[in-house]
Order: sequence, then C-alpha cells, then structure tokens
Amino acid sequence: MATIKIITAGESHGPQLTGIIEGIPSNLELSEDYINIQLKRRQIGYGRGGRMKIESDKARILSGVRWGKTLGSPITLVVENKDWSNWEKAMSSKEDAEGTKEPVLRPRPGHADLAGAIKYNFQDIRNVLERSSARETAMRVSVGAVCRKLLESFGIQVGSFVIRIGSVGRDYVENAQLVELFDAAEGSPVRCPFLDDSKGMVELIDAVSGEGDSIGGVFEVFALNVPVGLGSYVHWDRRLEGRLAQALMSIQAVKGVEVGLGFEMARRWGSEVMDEIFYEKGFYRATNSAGGIEGGMSNGEPIVLRAAMKPIPTQKKPLRSVDISSKAPVAAAYERSDVCAVPACSVIAEAMVSIIVADALLEKFGGDSIEETKRNVDSYRGYIRGF
Amino acid sequence: MATIKIITAGESHGPQLTGIIEGIPSNLELSEDYINIQLKRRQIGYGRGGRMKIESDKARILSGVRWGKTLGSPITLVVENKDWSNWEKAMSSKEDAEGTKEPVLRPRPGHADLAGAIKYNFQDIRNVLERSSARETAMRVSVGAVCRKLLESFGIQVGSFVIRIGSVGRDYVENAQLVELFDAAEGSPVRCPFLDDSKGMVELIDAVSGEGDSIGGVFEVFALNVPVGLGSYVHWDRRLEGRLAQALMSIQAVKGVEVGLGFEMARRWGSEVMDEIFYEKGFYRATNSAGGIEGGMSNGEPIVLRAAMKPIPTQKKPLRSVDISSKAPVAAAYERSDVCAVPACSVIAEAMVSIIVADALLEKFGGDSIEETKRNVDSYRGYIRGF
Amino acid sequence: MATIKIITAGESHGPQLTGIIEGIPSNLELSEDYINIQLKRRQIGYGRGGRMKIESDKARILSGVRWGKTLGSPITLVVENKDWSNWEKAMSSKEDAEGTKEPVLRPRPGHADLAGAIKYNFQDIRNVLERSSARETAMRVSVGAVCRKLLESFGIQVGSFVIRIGSVGRDYVENAQLVELFDAAEGSPVRCPFLDDSKGMVELIDAVSGEGDSIGGVFEVFALNVPVGLGSYVHWDRRLEGRLAQALMSIQAVKGVEVGLGFEMARRWGSEVMDEIFYEKGFYRATNSAGGIEGGMSNGEPIVLRAAMKPIPTQKKPLRSVDISSKAPVAAAYERSDVCAVPACSVIAEAMVSIIVADALLEKFGGDSIEETKRNVDSYRGYIRGF
Amino acid sequence: MATIKIITAGESHGPQLTGIIEGIPSNLELSEDYINIQLKRRQIGYGRGGRMKIESDKARILSGVRWGKTLGSPITLVVENKDWSNWEKAMSSKEDAEGTKEPVLRPRPGHADLAGAIKYNFQDIRNVLERSSARETAMRVSVGAVCRKLLESFGIQVGSFVIRIGSVGRDYVENAQLVELFDAAEGSPVRCPFLDDSKGMVELIDAVSGEGDSIGGVFEVFALNVPVGLGSYVHWDRRLEGRLAQALMSIQAVKGVEVGLGFEMARRWGSEVMDEIFYEKGFYRATNSAGGIEGGMSNGEPIVLRAAMKPIPTQKKPLRSVDISSKAPVAAAYERSDVCAVPACSVIAEAMVSIIVADALLEKFGGDSIEETKRNVDSYRGYIRGF
Repeated sequence: MATIKIITAGESHGPQLTGIIEGIPSNLELSEDYINIQLKRRQIGYGRGGRMKIESDKARILSGVRWGKTLGSPITLVVENKDWSNWEKAMSSKEDAEGTKEPVLRPRPGHADLAGAIKYNFQDIRNVLERSSARETAMRVSVGAVCRKLLESFGIQVGSFVIRIGSVGRDYVENAQLVELFDAAEGSPVRCPFLDDSKGMVELIDAVSGEGDSIGGVFEVFALNVPVGLGSYVHWDRRLEGRLAQALMSIQAVKGVEVGLGFEMARRWGSEVMDEIFYEKGFYRATNSAGGIEGGMSNGEPIVLRAAMKPIPTQKKPLRSVDISSKAPVAAAYERSDVCAVPACSVIAEAMVSIIVADALLEKFGGDSIEETKRNVDSYRGYIRGF
Repeated sequence: MATIKIITAGESHGPQLTGIIEGIPSNLELSEDYINIQLKRRQIGYGRGGRMKIESDKARILSGVRWGKTLGSPITLVVENKDWSNWEKAMSSKEDAEGTKEPVLRPRPGHADLAGAIKYNFQDIRNVLERSSARETAMRVSVGAVCRKLLESFGIQVGSFVIRIGSVGRDYVENAQLVELFDAAEGSPVRCPFLDDSKGMVELIDAVSGEGDSIGGVFEVFALNVPVGLGSYVHWDRRLEGRLAQALMSIQAVKGVEVGLGFEMARRWGSEVMDEIFYEKGFYRATNSAGGIEGGMSNGEPIVLRAAMKPIPTQKKPLRSVDISSKAPVAAAYERSDVCAVPACSVIAEAMVSIIVADALLEKFGGDSIEETKRNVDSYRGYIRGF
Repeated sequence: MATIKIITAGESHGPQLTGIIEGIPSNLELSEDYINIQLKRRQIGYGRGGRMKIESDKARILSGVRWGKTLGSPITLVVENKDWSNWEKAMSSKEDAEGTKEPVLRPRPGHADLAGAIKYNFQDIRNVLERSSARETAMRVSVGAVCRKLLESFGIQVGSFVIRIGSVGRDYVENAQLVELFDAAEGSPVRCPFLDDSKGMVELIDAVSGEGDSIGGVFEVFALNVPVGLGSYVHWDRRLEGRLAQALMSIQAVKGVEVGLGFEMARRWGSEVMDEIFYEKGFYRATNSAGGIEGGMSNGEPIVLRAAMKPIPTQKKPLRSVDISSKAPVAAAYERSDVCAVPACSVIAEAMVSIIVADALLEKFGGDSIEETKRNVDSYRGYIRGF
Repeated sequence: MATIKIITAGESHGPQLTGIIEGIPSNLELSEDYINIQLKRRQIGYGRGGRMKIESDKARILSGVRWGKTLGSPITLVVENKDWSNWEKAMSSKEDAEGTKEPVLRPRPGHADLAGAIKYNFQDIRNVLERSSARETAMRVSVGAVCRKLLESFGIQVGSFVIRIGSVGRDYVENAQLVELFDAAEGSPVRCPFLDDSKGMVELIDAVSGEGDSIGGVFEVFALNVPVGLGSYVHWDRRLEGRLAQALMSIQAVKGVEVGLGFEMARRWGSEVMDEIFYEKGFYRATNSAGGIEGGMSNGEPIVLRAAMKPIPTQKKPLRSVDISSKAPVAAAYERSDVCAVPACSVIAEAMVSIIVADALLEKFGGDSIEETKRNVDSYRGYIRGF
C-alpha cells in the first residue's frame, strides 16, 4: 500500500484484537455502529461452528475520532475477546503463567502449524495457531469498514456474493447485475443470490458436516463507481489488479484469484473477450470481461474479482500428522472450527478490496481533510467530463 | 517487497530499458551472459509477431558488478532498443522533436490506452502505450535473472511450463514431476511438456492467426527447494502467496492466479485436499495440493502457482473503438503484435517468482555478502534437521 | 525503517495511547515491568509541570507476548490515560458528545496549532494539539523499550545525558567515558553528569520558571557495542546517520542533531578530526570524532549523537497570537505545561535510537527467532575476528 | 519518502551514474539543459581537486520524457564517466578483467573503507570506495533537479549559501534576506554571500591546502513559498523536519543538521525564540526562528536548514592506518581529492531538499498530470485564503 498504513495485532484467544490505521483524512464521519454492521456480516453464514454463536463482535474506537469525525491522526480499533476470562492464564503475557496449558504438539495439515513452529522455533504449536487463525480477520473487517466509509463519500460501493460451495454453483457470472445479486445474497444463508444454488449449498454443507469433513467455495467481490485511473501501468507494483490480488490471496484459505472473466479468458479468443469502446456523453462499454481494470488501472466499469477458498483444514474426521516432539504418527489436533466459511470470507474480501481501493484513491487524489479530497475528486470528475 | 528494491524504466520504442536492483549481497557471481540466456527464453515461442524476430535482446551491466562479482551496491541493467535509429525523433526527449509523429487517437479495448490517456491527460495515446506495452518485461526478466542467480546459490530452482492455449490443454497437473515437465517444455515451441497438447496448441495458434484474432492460455510456474518458513502468517502483507499473487497478476494480460490446486480446491472436500504430514529423517508430505505454501509460508514442498493470460488485445481483426479527439466511432489502432504470447509470459512469471522468493529469502536470512547469507541459511538448515 | 514496522496512536487526553510493533523475532523475553522502567525514566526531571506528577505511566502488553516471551507476531502496547474520567465527554469518539467542551481558538506560536488547523480543516485547535502533544512520546518510549530489550540480547547498550540547559553547560564532550557519564546522569535531577553544571541548570530552571518562561537544552545519546557494518553507503536512504537524524529530529521541539563532534568538525582541520586506525587483536581507534559512524555505517566505536531541544513553546507569559475565528489579536492559549523537558527528551531520544539500531541490526542479520538472530550475529562476530 | 521513489546507482570510476525517479506527474516540462545547470553548479567552488576540472558533467534523459514533457513513467537519468576509457579494465563487470588493477589495502580514516570492507567481505577496498565516494551525488543533483522543476511549477524556490569554512564565518544568520544572500552567494568562489568572509575563506583554503590538509564548513539551505501543511505531526515518520534531516545527514561528510535557529535555540529562553502570530489578509510572522516548520509541518514561512560538513578525510598529509591484509601499520591511501567541498555540498543539499519537499507536496496534493496537481494546489491555496 502506498498511502494508508495499517497494522493489525492480536492472538485468537488473547485479550483483544487491535488495529491502527494511519492516513485517513480528517472530518470523515465514523462511528462504532457503522463498523459493527460489517463485523456482524462477517459472523453470519450457514456452516459456522460454535464459536461464532457466542456473542457478536463489537469494535471500539480508541483514537483518531472525536465527536463522530476523524482527526487525521491514527485510528485505533479494538475488538475484545468476550471469552478472555477463560483464557487469561493460557494466553497471559506474564512469565509466571508458563505451563498453565498443555502444549499443542500435533500440527494440522493445511495450516501454518508445522512451518510456523519451525520458522519461529516453538515447541508449542499454540504459539503459531493463535495468530495464524482467521480470527484476525475480524480486525481486517474493522479497518476495512473505515476505508469503506471513506469510499462511500465518493459514491463508491463495495459488495460480494457467493457463487460456488463445493460442487454446487457456477464458475462465474458474466456481465452480472451486481447490485441486484448483492441484494439477493444478503438474504441467503450462504450469501448466494441464486435461490436453487443457495438451497443446494445448504444441503451440501449438511452432508459434509455429517461426515466430519469441510468444504470451500468461490465468491465474487466488486466495487462500483470507481473513478477512471486508480492504479497505473507505469510500474509493476502500481498495478491495481496486482494489489487487489495480493489483498485477496492474503486471506486465510484463499488459493485462487481472478479479475473479470479470469481463467475463462484463457479459453476464449481475443475477439470474444475485449470490451469494445463506445461514446455517448462519455466513454462506455457494453461488456465487462476485463472486470473494470485495463492496463493496471480502473477503467470506470465495475471492478469485479473472484476468489477461491479451500476447505477449512481443521476437521473432525482426523487427518494424519506427526507429533513434533516425539515424531510419532498421530491424528492432527482438532480445534472447534467451521464446516464452511465461504460466506464470511466474501465479507472479509470486501474489507480487503475497500482497503486497496481507498489506498489507490488517496494516492491519486491526496487530501488531508475529507473536504480537500472531495474537492480534488470532484475537480477530476469534472475534467473527465470534458475529456 | 521488503528487502530488495527494484525500479524499472523505459518506453517500448525509447532508446533503452533500464533497471536498477538494490539489495543484492556482495560477491555473488554474475555475468551478462547469464542474464541473456533468460532474455532469449523470453523471446521465443510459437505465435510471436514480427518484432521479436529482429534480433535478440542483450543486457548490459553498468554498475554494481566488478570482475564478475556483485559489489553490494545497486546493479544497473540496460537493454538497448536495436531499432532506436528509426524512432529517434518520434520518441525524442527533446521539445524540438514535437510533432514528428502522428498522434495515436484510437484506443484499443483491453489495453491501458483509454484509461491511461484520461489519467495522465494525454491527447496522444502513444504516450501511454509506450510504457504500458509488455516490452518492459524484458527488464523484469533481466532483474529477475539476478534474483534467480542468487537463488541458485541456495539450490533453489525456478521453472515453468504451459498447460493450456485457448481450448487446448488442461486446467492443472496434480502432484506433477516438475523438473521433468520443465525439461520437456523447454523443447516445445509453445513451452508445453505434453506432446499432443503441444501439437494442438500450434494448430490452434495457426487457426487463430488466420482469422486475425488472438489467444491466451494458462501456465504453471514453480520454485523447488525453498526453505521452510519464507513469508509469514503474522501480518497479512507478509504472506508469501499474497506477494506471489501480486507479482504474477502484475504481468500484462494476466487475469487469474492460483496456488497449488487453486480453484479446484473449492470443488473438493477438505479430506481430499489436505497434504497429510509424515516423518522420516524429516517432515514430509505425500501430496502437494497446497502448492508448497501453508499459513502464508513456504512449507518445504515445491511452490506451485498457475496463471491465466488473456488473449492479447491488439488484433488485426478490428475491434470497435472511439477517436479520443473527435469522439467518432472508429476501428481500434493496430500495432504490430503477437497472436499468442503465453510461452513468453511463463518465462516472465519465472522472473517475478524469482524476485519475490529472493526478497523473502533475504528478509529471513539477512546478510551483506553471499558468504554471510550462506552461513545464515546453512545454520538454519542445520537447525531444521535437529527440530 | 526497513525491517521493523511501528505505528503509534492516541490523543493526549484520549482514553489511551496505543502502539503496535511488528517485526520483532520470537522468544525474546519481555515484560511490562521492563517497559515501565523506561516510562518512569521519561517522567522524571526537574522542571516538569503538574501533569507528570499525577501518577506514573504503565504499559500493558496486549498481544505478541505469551508467558514472558515474544511470539514473532505484532506486539500491542497500551498506556492508559489515568485522567480519562475527566475527559470522557471532551474527547469522546461519539457524535453526541459534540460541543461538550469549548473550542480552542488561539494558536500557540511554536506549536502545530495554526498549521495543523489549516492542514486538516479544523475550527477547534484541540483537534490538533491532542495529537501533536509530546504526550505521544510515552508510546515511543514503550516501543523503544521493546527494541532496547532486543539490543540487550546482543550486548548493545543505549544511554544519554544532558550537557546544556539554556546558557549553562557545554557544547560537546570529546571522547567521553560514556558509561560513567550515563551513570552520573541517572543521579542528577536534570540528567546532567557534571555536578556544577547540574546545580546551575536547576537554578536556571527556577529563574526561568519564575518569569513564566521556558528553556531548552542539549543532550547526548549513545549506543555501545554496536557491530561494525549496520547501515550502508550503497544508497543514501540506507545511511545510518541519516536514519538516526530523522529519528531524533522527529522528537517534538528538537531543532538540531549532530553525529560525533558535529558542527565542531566544521571548525577544525581534517588532520584534527580523523580517527586514525590501529590494530591489536582487531582494528581499533584511539579517538571517536566520527561518533562511531563512517560512510553511513557503524564502525564498531560507540555511536554518539547530540540533539538540541528548543524551549517548550507553551508559556505562562503570554505570546501574541490571533483568534482563528475572529482574526482578532489575542494572547496564545495556555495549557498546563513544563518549564524544561530536556531530561525527558533525552530518554525519548534513547528510545528512538534503540528503534533505529534494532531495525538496522535485523536488516543485516535477519532471523525469525531470537535464537536464529543470535546465531547469525555470533557467526558474523566470529568472521570479523578472522578478518 | 512516501510518494516519489528514487534509486541511484553507479561506481565513481564505472561507466556511468544512473538514476531512476518514479512518481513525477505527466506533462511537466523537463530538459537535459535544465538538469545540466545544476550539475555545473555542483562542480564549481574554490578548493576542488583536479578531477572536477576535467570536463563538466552532462545528464542524459533516457526514459520518461517525450518531446520535452514528462510521461508520468519512470525517468531515467545518466551521467557518463568522461574518463571511462582509462578505467575499462579496472572497473569492468567481466570476470576476465580480474586482477588488472592492484587492490587498495590501506583504509582511510573517516571514510567507509574499513567498515565497508568488513561488512561486504572485500579484500580490495576499491570495491567500497567506488560507491561510497561523493561522486554519486552528481546523480542526486540530477534527480533533485527534476524535483526542483516540479517545485517551480508551484512557485517554490530552493537555494543555499555557505556561512562558515573552518574558523572563518558565522554560526547562523537570523531572519535573513534569503534571496539576496543566495544571489550574492552565486557570485562567490566559495558560495558565501558575505564579501569579507568569502575572502577569508579563500585564504584559509589556500593555507590548508599548503599544509596538505582539508577543511569543512557550514551552509544554509532554504525553500521559499512552500504551502502551509506539508509533513505532519500525526505520526513521527511524517514530520517534515525529520525527513529533511535524514536527507541532509545522508550527504557524505555531513555531521550536523539544524532547523531554523537550531542549537542556538537551546541557549535562549522561550520568549526569545517563538515566532508570534499576526494577521493581515492572512496569517503571518515577523520572525522565523522555527525555520518555517512547526509541529512537523511547513508553516508558510521560508524553510531554513543548516548543515555542517566535516573536512574531507582524504588527505595528502598522511593519516595513520593499517594494511587490511598484513595488519601492519601504514599510511592511509591517498586518492586525488578536494581540499574543501563545502560549496558543492550546499548545492547537493539543495537537491536533497528539493526531493523531500516535492515528495511531501505530492503526498498532500496527489495528481497524475501536472495540470491535476496544479488544480489541487490552487484549490487548497484558495481554501487557505478563506480560512
């Protein structure tokens, strides 16, 4: 990222998740309630395990906002662990709590467990899994909500929907009505806008759950009304699709990312997938195979991305592993987990896309107060109308 | 990137491409010949247009190397434009050459042309296309070769092969013999290791070419013998797969990236895609669905990535566009171009993977001389054996 | 910074200061008590105003440390505002608290007040001064303590002492016995190791205080036992003295920074200030005019820096200013403040030096666990012995 | 730096110096002639050694500029070594030239020589001194000229003058008429605007030269018409004085940096050094002790900095050293060098200040074309008038 700086912190069962976001202009309206709506969206979805049901996450704002508006200074967000009293010893920062919890010795395939223990020289895998857990995405969603609020000031909307769970669903939706699909998805237990698919997905999750297994899927995430010209072709690390790809691929369990038609474009001929250019009171396209990005830049069409989430690797049905201490064959550890987290993953992906687009927007338009950034964006939009 | 800094520069028809790479340890053996081997690999492949046939690119080393070894100082690489005498006026940096070449006014769909002209306020699309052109990847391959040389010091090998051109080929190769496939690919005109596929791809390219159309494809790129623990789960921007995804997605025309089984993992059940853990004189896996990355880190298995390249958008068969000056409907501009560049793209992807893995390696191991970095890597490898 | 990432946050009268430090290796012993020793050192010093007397700052560790050892994950530190109950409305993040405190309209010369209000578009200068206040340095000292702990693992010691308050004291101490001066300073009310100067400084502070005025000074900060070769000459932004200069100059009210003999070197002839090179079981110097840095690198001698702090601009004796709303001439606002904060500033400077040296050390030696970094440092120190 | 990226490269006697600057908006007028004016200013000054007299440096623009205007793409600058034919073997990148020049074994005190050889594991100090040499500042001046051109678009002027050489001159010039002093300095052989001082400096240099010794000095560098609000107090690494301090301290031989009255402020009382605030058709100050920076931000007054340059450590009169191979006491190596380079250093400092101010300006105002950045700056300046 070029303009916004973010650090998140916190162990899964530690006292809290913390995030600081630096680089947001002043005078942006921001409230805890606004952030909490996104946190709630992250927690729902058919197929989640017990943990999610405890109580909903709440974010607190502990710096950078006064009387409902940002100060231009770093914004501190905190999401407390509601279950901390049960973990105070096990996750204490203090030396005298050492040994109050049995070490985890059986690395789970597909997780950070084994490589993490080797990298950081741990004899207790808990020291890895507490941070590698997708629990940290609650903070990504929180800081992403701040960026989402910034984007709303400029009429930019970010959303998502699920299109595949395991064998049920589809690979892509060509030239989709994104807002309608998003609205439909918000009413589905699996965030899938297609009714039949949605039902089939729920049934599949039940079947998978019955076997003690897990299942992944594919979702689409989009951003609407993004100005032409975010990102750039002038240097490889400025390309918007590259930055978005990193952001999505960095979500736990994501193993594939596409822009626009993605892998399908590799199957078709050139004349079938180019979005021809037309003009009527402005340039426009009739199709959007490119997913709103050409030459590393937003081209004014909806930005459309897709990501594949693998099945969650923690499973009731035990996988084979090795005890890191004795080196004996064992069944992998099992921590309470979800059967399917694709709907949540799509909400996390919205947060990551919000972060990247907000960063690219501030990179292009600058501004220390929201009023200044708006002046600059408006002036550019006026210039485009006259181009 | 965290440790290595790279800037590349140069217009497609300008006097030269230039790249500077900062952060390579001293005393690494490096020669122009070594780099030129990679530049040559980038230029071959069935389906390339006329330009590639001119003469092969040559890199010159203009700083940072003395008597065949790196100095620890920034390394300057230059690839000259052999055709510069024909472009001296058109691409002159001097004001008095203004107007010596007709402006390009017809933006090509699928390219940076239109968004770039708007973003940078140009009335001549040549000012965009000269830099957005994939010509700049010759410099990526050059700096990537420096990183590849560094990786070789540690026994790390990077390679690639093509698995799909348009409708011909396959989506992935499960648990592949990577070195054998690479060796076979090096002998194929389309860098595809499967003989029948290779033939079919050549035929398809001929057919597409006959129609004045273009075609894309899918390739696999891998890195072998990467130590456990490059990248990290502790913060999202440290995750190795995210950094690799950005690097690959930043290549012109790439629209999709996968790690390991990628999108296929979204179709299967959890128990089908987890790489179980075994031990015999060290931890190992029998499968590699994860593509060598778990929890944002290399896990010691081969790193396996896949990318989809869209068809090149410059086509003989004209696409509809709009003159940016008159706003009248026109046929898009045509610049001499390739019909299919997937084999070249796979070589470029090797360069990008080399850059990211080298960066992650130096991030973990530090070192100012190659001797120091080796001491640190060897010491870590010894530690792993005792883990 | 290259390797360690830090963000700090928090308003002076907000609920808390927060800091996250990312990039510290695992298995480093760390406790709140250790950090609190540094926080206490920051709060003492003759000439501090009322605020400091309230109660001593305490840091809490809320992530990244378990059972007394770092986890390799981001470390969250919090210093709570003991006076928060009196500021809950005035500094609330919630919109409905708006207007519960009168706006500050009279910018103080020498502070961020006026430029800050213009930059961020505020009509209440409190929105500026809450973050521009040197209160935030409590968090710098906290994160600096983490870096100091890391440095101690390698035998590196960081300290400071005051050499001038206003007209009392000296400009530099040539080839000083740094540890002895540090020890003496720790017993002085103004952190000055020279008894007569120390007394004179206290008297001067009393005199200045009596006039409702304020006073600054000069301090020296050093780092001992730093390995040869941190920082580099290969690129300007790698130079260690530049990074240290930024770190010190970024402390509120610091207006000058020197390395070694500093400005005095501009007065002398070359033959008077070069530290000649000798050898006896290793290279050494008899003098240290260079302050331990040659060619942008540590040279193995003590790193010696000096910084000048201006008088604190908040004064009882009113300065002329202008009401930002009415534009009428007014006396500048007065917030309870210190008469002299040079002793505290020297402790803050130790923190900043600790951060930069730790960053440069990890940049050179890498390592994910403290054991790995130690192996790498030891191996390098062995190599130097054989050079 | 936040917005502009720069890498420079090149050994002192290598074929060329190369620099790439990334992040300059499009449509900025730029010519080689403009850059060469600055390169020439760097080469003059009484007290320079033989090398400077060879022939003046010339920059060539090899990318990023077409027909006299920037393209928004990375700008490549090259300054060739006019003496390359004499060094082709000694500095060849090719392995087969190894041994064609005797190794340098006698490290010069005050230089990078010894620490550099240890850090990078060299047995020939030429591998260090070729890059650590101040020769590389010719490229800093070149890229600085690009930034200077950008600043001129906004009416920002950067200049400097010398105020001390050794014992001759003064420590600071309070509330100076900067433009007049700059103009006077341009006519002085030592860039000193005060006639008597200028004469005394020349005499001193002659005396020092006669002894085979060297001498340093102090210069002032300034930037006029910088908008209020560049840099920020919200995070320590955003503070403008810190970024400027790093930039100046990173120049070879600079050992001290001051902002405004600098160290003198540590001697005076608060009421003597605060720049009170007045209003008449806008806020203004009658004094400028702060040097144009309050709270880490430009405050609209001239930015005034001062730096101390130590004597050049290469001396005819030999310093004691040690042969790195035999460990025997020897006289330090002597490479042809200057007696006094303070005037040149002040020009280099102008370049560094131009880079930092341009970076901070683009950070605040964004913009991809110079027209867009201008719109944003003008809009902000209009807003300030109404504040």
